[in-house]
Amino acid sequence: MRSRAGRRGCYIPAPHSIHAIHAHLGVPMDALTTYLEQHRDRFVEDLKAALRIPSVSAKAEHKQDCARCAAFIADHLKSLGMTRVEVVPTAGHPVVYAEWLGASGKPTALLYGHYDVQPPDPLELWQTPPFEPTLRDGKLYARGAVDDKGQVYMHLKAIEAHMKVNGKLPVNLKVVIEGEEEVGSENLAKFLRDRRKQLDADVIVVSDTAMLGPDQPALTIGLRGICYTQIEVVGPVKDLHSGHFGGAVRNPANALAAIIAGLQDAEGRATVPGFYDQVRALTADEQRALNALPFDEKGFIAESGAPIAWGEKGFNTLERTTVRPTLDVNGMWSGYTGEGSKTVLPSFAAAKVSMRLVPDQDPAAIFKAFEAHVKRIAPSGVTVKVKDLHSAPPFLTSPDHPMLEAARRALKRAWTKPPVYIREGGSIPVMATFQETHDLPSILIGFGLDDDQVHSPNEKISLTSYHGGTKSVAYLYEELARTT
Amino acid sequence: MRSRAGRRGCYIPAPHSIHAIHAHLGVPMDALTTYLEQHRDRFVEDLKAALRIPSVSAKAEHKQDCARCAAFIADHLKSLGMTRVEVVPTAGHPVVYAEWLGASGKPTALLYGHYDVQPPDPLELWQTPPFEPTLRDGKLYARGAVDDKGQVYMHLKAIEAHMKVNGKLPVNLKVVIEGEEEVGSENLAKFLRDRRKQLDADVIVVSDTAMLGPDQPALTIGLRGICYTQIEVVGPVKDLHSGHFGGAVRNPANALAAIIAGLQDAEGRATVPGFYDQVRALTADEQRALNALPFDEKGFIAESGAPIAWGEKGFNTLERTTVRPTLDVNGMWSGYTGEGSKTVLPSFAAAKVSMRLVPDQDPAAIFKAFEAHVKRIAPSGVTVKVKDLHSAPPFLTSPDHPMLEAARRALKRAWTKPPVYIREGGSIPVMATFQETHDLPSILIGFGLDDDQVHSPNEKISLTSYHGGTKSVAYLYEELARTT
Repeated sequence: MRSRAGRRGCYIPAPHSIHAIHAHLGVPMDALTTYLEQHRDRFVEDLKAALRIPSVSAKAEHKQDCARCAAFIADHLKSLGMTRVEVVPTAGHPVVYAEWLGASGKPTALLYGHYDVQPPDPLELWQTPPFEPTLRDGKLYARGAVDDKGQVYMHLKAIEAHMKVNGKLPVNLKVVIEGEEEVGSENLAKFLRDRRKQLDADVIVVSDTAMLGPDQPALTIGLRGICYTQIEVVGPVKDLHSGHFGGAVRNPANALAAIIAGLQDAEGRATVPGFYDQVRALTADEQRALNALPFDEKGFIAESGAPIAWGEKGFNTLERTTVRPTLDVNGMWSGYTGEGSKTVLPSFAAAKVSMRLVPDQDPAAIFKAFEAHVKRIAPSGVTVKVKDLHSAPPFLTSPDHPMLEAARRALKRAWTKPPVYIREGGSIPVMATFQETHDLPSILIGFGLDDDQVHSPNEKISLTSYHGGTKSVAYLYEELARTT
Repeated sequence: MRSRAGRRGCYIPAPHSIHAIHAHLGVPMDALTTYLEQHRDRFVEDLKAALRIPSVSAKAEHKQDCARCAAFIADHLKSLGMTRVEVVPTAGHPVVYAEWLGASGKPTALLYGHYDVQPPDPLELWQTPPFEPTLRDGKLYARGAVDDKGQVYMHLKAIEAHMKVNGKLPVNLKVVIEGEEEVGSENLAKFLRDRRKQLDADVIVVSDTAMLGPDQPALTIGLRGICYTQIEVVGPVKDLHSGHFGGAVRNPANALAAIIAGLQDAEGRATVPGFYDQVRALTADEQRALNALPFDEKGFIAESGAPIAWGEKGFNTLERTTVRPTLDVNGMWSGYTGEGSKTVLPSFAAAKVSMRLVPDQDPAAIFKAFEAHVKRIAPSGVTVKVKDLHSAPPFLTSPDHPMLEAARRALKRAWTKPPVYIREGGSIPVMATFQETHDLPSILIGFGLDDDQVHSPNEKISLTSYHGGTKSVAYLYEELARTT
């Protein structure tokens, strides 16, 4: 999971079970819903089985666990009645593929998720072991509980429900569950390109994002892109004694600081020439929708732990984190960084600097402008190199697309209130790959919550999210079928 | 050894042995000189014995070796006829003390040196093992060869020569050989304060500096002081996701860069208000002497490995490194510094920033001005702390003092040419402690060379330096006796 919305701090008390609400309202329950309600506990047990496999993609010692997890998911897909189930080897961890194409004349959805998880460290901060899934107070704690095995299992259980109740799915489905999302999806692009035709579909569905609050569903319609660089400044060929040489040669750490200081003005605007030229202004509708979001700025800043809000002049915090581009140092290092004092004049200084991009900024053009600006403001006496570490274009889809409308209806049915449309500050680089290989409308329908501890110790999924999400995607398949 | 002059790059071919020159010139040799000449090879063997003891003060596993080295030096001093020889325990490694006070009516010299050495790492770069002293091409290779065991042994062998030839020393001598110079002399100040009266003397003699070239002796008359600080910038209480929070809160790494950029102007001058107020202008004589030094700027910059010379406008490289104060970042760190990209918005950024100081700058006043300036230019949205990690006042002595004159005569006798007077860019913090406890004229008479690899693999002492240095200090004792 690269991107979460729950952080917007809309703290709404969790509702009673939808079942209870329906019963209370006297709404007759359809067979699909009944199945979903009746098998909730077993759905949790099924998810637990997947969570017990430590499929940590970043660690070589878990390579076999990743392979085991891929095989486990593949077997499960097969048992649900999916066809052409494959565990596809890659240069890294395998991709699981499966399809069901029996809904003649109906749309085809390409479902993307990932079975790999972040390393669980630091282990000592977990209340219960990361790979021994444990229920506490309506929450299931385990590494991968929400990111992303829990959200993958919402789809698997929705597929099961349709298959068991109707013997078929309402739409055609192609499923891609990869094992390298947490390490950059390096081998996925090749898989998508190699199978471009096989993966042809009408819509992409991804469940790896979040809700706005425990009972406020959300559809993510925008993601920021990224241009992630590394600035390297070399002065003397070796570290020098600052007593002997101090004052006589340019210090690369001082030089780097001057460069970084020259990237942003005092009002929080990037000073890279042309940086804002391609930023698309919000439409009146977009601005209204943004303004209408129940965004708790105080809560958001409190959650960040920063003393005050600060950012680009002329914009508020919600705008700054979603529809405006940014420039941040992500890391910086030079010289002696240990205890006490060492009188070294460093030969080298470097910084990782990334820019979050918004439509219609182009990462390649931004990198070029950034590199030229850095070289222009670099002081004499040092050599400066700028590297392009990775990039992803921004993503933005229209909520008016019929596929998005279908998702809206599905969420409204499952949660008894319509979703809000949100733009995320983060990036999901794989969305760019999908756009490049398939250029399809994309539904980012996710069920994470603000306090899920994604990538941190004590990751969890709320059962409300898990069951509500399963129901949402089961309805989504039905609603997508209605778009034809 | 904290400070070296040899770097000034005056490359003069090594002379033939002084003995040969004397013989050639037909100068009759006195008994002292004859003894020094005749025992050269054994003096090298004696030094080797001390170099075999790995007295690495920084490493706990060498604690016993440091104690053994202290005892070894103490025993040697005793065997030479020194009295009141003590190995004085401290909170760290012991101090060796010895004295000989039989030169009634003559001055008393307080000799300072250190028996501890830097860690030898990286071991794989040594041509021969660091604690197996090896002669190659007239140079003795070992950790501590020149810093400072070799220079301590010049004095021990000079003492031996006087004792053997004359049965006495020409001056009274108090010897302090410490074991913590390479780790900051932490426990020496207490020792000097506790024994302030016992250590009373007329002059301090230190051999831990360098010559200007292989046959150009030098007296170091000035050292820069230092004010070494750490700037710590805290933003959010924890590292944040740069996608979620980027743009909304002040990034402490960007803030730190802005602060560092605000410490110096484009012409290399520190912008700390009042920074230059106490800088004493050179007298016409001092400026003339500086201009007359055979300083090879090109060679110096080439040795640094920096592409060009750069520094405070209006001054040349020699001035910038000796008589002008500086401001340098020694280290800097924040956020993610590993391979590839991590989209973190760091909660913390820090830099070590040190200033080299010249007479009459006061480290405490400079720190105060620096701290106030940093806080004044710190951006909003972060908390900034400035720590004083260590400081030492600048040191400057007059070459006209009779004790310095004596040193000049001794060096001229030993090397057949007078010494140059140099000011060093580095600092020897213990000089400040001596000035505080004893306030005596100080002779910095050292014999290191530019290519001695002090603190680096393959440290060596040239035998020309070793024997010339031994002769120089043997003569120094005689010349000091003549000051009365």
